[in-house]
Amino acid sequence: MPTYRIDLAYNGAGFHGYARQPNVRTVQGVLEEALFRIVDRVETAVAGRTDKGVHARAQVVSFSTDADVDTARLMRSLNRQLAPEVAVSRLEPAADGFNARFDATGRAYTYLVLNREAPDPFLAAFSWQCPTPLDIGRMNLAAGHFVGEHDFASLCRKAGERSTVRLVRRAEWSRRDGDLLAFDVAASSFCHQMVRSMVALCVEVGRGRLSTDDVPAILEARDRHLAKGAAPPHGLTLVAVHYRH
Amino acid sequence: MPTYRIDLAYNGAGFHGYARQPNVRTVQGVLEEALFRIVDRVETAVAGRTDKGVHARAQVVSFSTDADVDTARLMRSLNRQLAPEVAVSRLEPAADGFNARFDATGRAYTYLVLNREAPDPFLAAFSWQCPTPLDIGRMNLAAGHFVGEHDFASLCRKAGERSTVRLVRRAEWSRRDGDLLAFDVAASSFCHQMVRSMVALCVEVGRGRLSTDDVPAILEARDRHLAKGAAPPHGLTLVAVHYRH
Repeated sequence: MPTYRIDLAYNGAGFHGYARQPNVRTVQGVLEEALFRIVDRVETAVAGRTDKGVHARAQVVSFSTDADVDTARLMRSLNRQLAPEVAVSRLEPAADGFNARFDATGRAYTYLVLNREAPDPFLAAFSWQCPTPLDIGRMNLAAGHFVGEHDFASLCRKAGERSTVRLVRRAEWSRRDGDLLAFDVAASSFCHQMVRSMVALCVEVGRGRLSTDDVPAILEARDRHLAKGAAPPHGLTLVAVHYRH
Repeated sequence: MPTYRIDLAYNGAGFHGYARQPNVRTVQGVLEEALFRIVDRVETAVAGRTDKGVHARAQVVSFSTDADVDTARLMRSLNRQLAPEVAVSRLEPAADGFNARFDATGRAYTYLVLNREAPDPFLAAFSWQCPTPLDIGRMNLAAGHFVGEHDFASLCRKAGERSTVRLVRRAEWSRRDGDLLAFDVAASSFCHQMVRSMVALCVEVGRGRLSTDDVPAILEARDRHLAKGAAPPHGLTLVAVHYRH
């Protein structure tokens, strides 16, 4: 059955996350509502089920249908219906059976921290403001402990029975435009609240409340209670999904 | 009487402009409400009375008072009360009698145009989306006609009896990040809706509906009806105010 791939971006502020849920507004909800006006009801798959308030610059969704799809027209129609909160940047035929979720080999997220006392009205919607001075060198030492294959049970919410072992390929803080710090992290996949828990932990190290050596100890304990909670969702953005081609 | 200068930024989306008005939320309204909790009721002056929906990165406000002012404490208090929509980046003593409005020798604005078909959820709040391809070379030729001292009656709303002659020091389009176009304009001062009328006119030239030669003809006619309306306010930001020191 012909399969299609949708690349989209969204501002998560107005949504209760990506995944459809009863009685609340979700990205999947508005996307499928718009899609089903043009294409018969189909099942969609998504690369990253972002949480309530989390943004995406490069989310990927797939669906298969036997119906005739004019991709250019469908893309225009979706953008007309969804703008400006959700924007489709590409809508193209994919290999038959392509699945945005199961075929993804990696996801990358960026978390922004505004490290200064005065807020910034232009960044407020997309960054977490931390007024306490942060030591980015220490935060990078902390982040280094995440890289590689580890059991991230301490940094995952409600892990349940599923494995919390993940392969982290990159975890790095950098300074952007003065007071704005960015955490770039890439992994095969992430468990629930993993990136935001990493950020909360790094910020504790950056402000001197934890030592960098506490980080491997917390990971090894595999105990969620040792983590320092999760940074707020509005600082987090899904920035890339990788596929093998 | 000791005088103080406040430098502030704001996201204009939630405000009916800078200037206080009855029954609507304005930047001056919330700023003075927060200020008067700390400092006795004083008169404030502002460099640029931005319209409903217009943003500011570097607005300047002044006030004078005989009361004791702890500037660091006042700045923290204002930021606590006003964040994240309004942010004070500096609050300092100024020369006695400094007036943010009358002492300003120049104002600079930036207007952002997103020139592409697909919307951008991250830029939507701060840029005007124009899906029709725009020729930035032609827009710069058009903008060149604004530079210098001219009567801008054609580009000013409700001019009334006051002079609409202004000295424009800079009016220039540039390309930022691919599809994002920026119009940077600086002048002694601007009359009402002047920048947004300039943008609307340049966009008409950029999409080929007007020739660049139409611009001086429209200016010379001093007739508001010849202008092409005003670009929407949410693309406009006050970016700098200049003072002679």
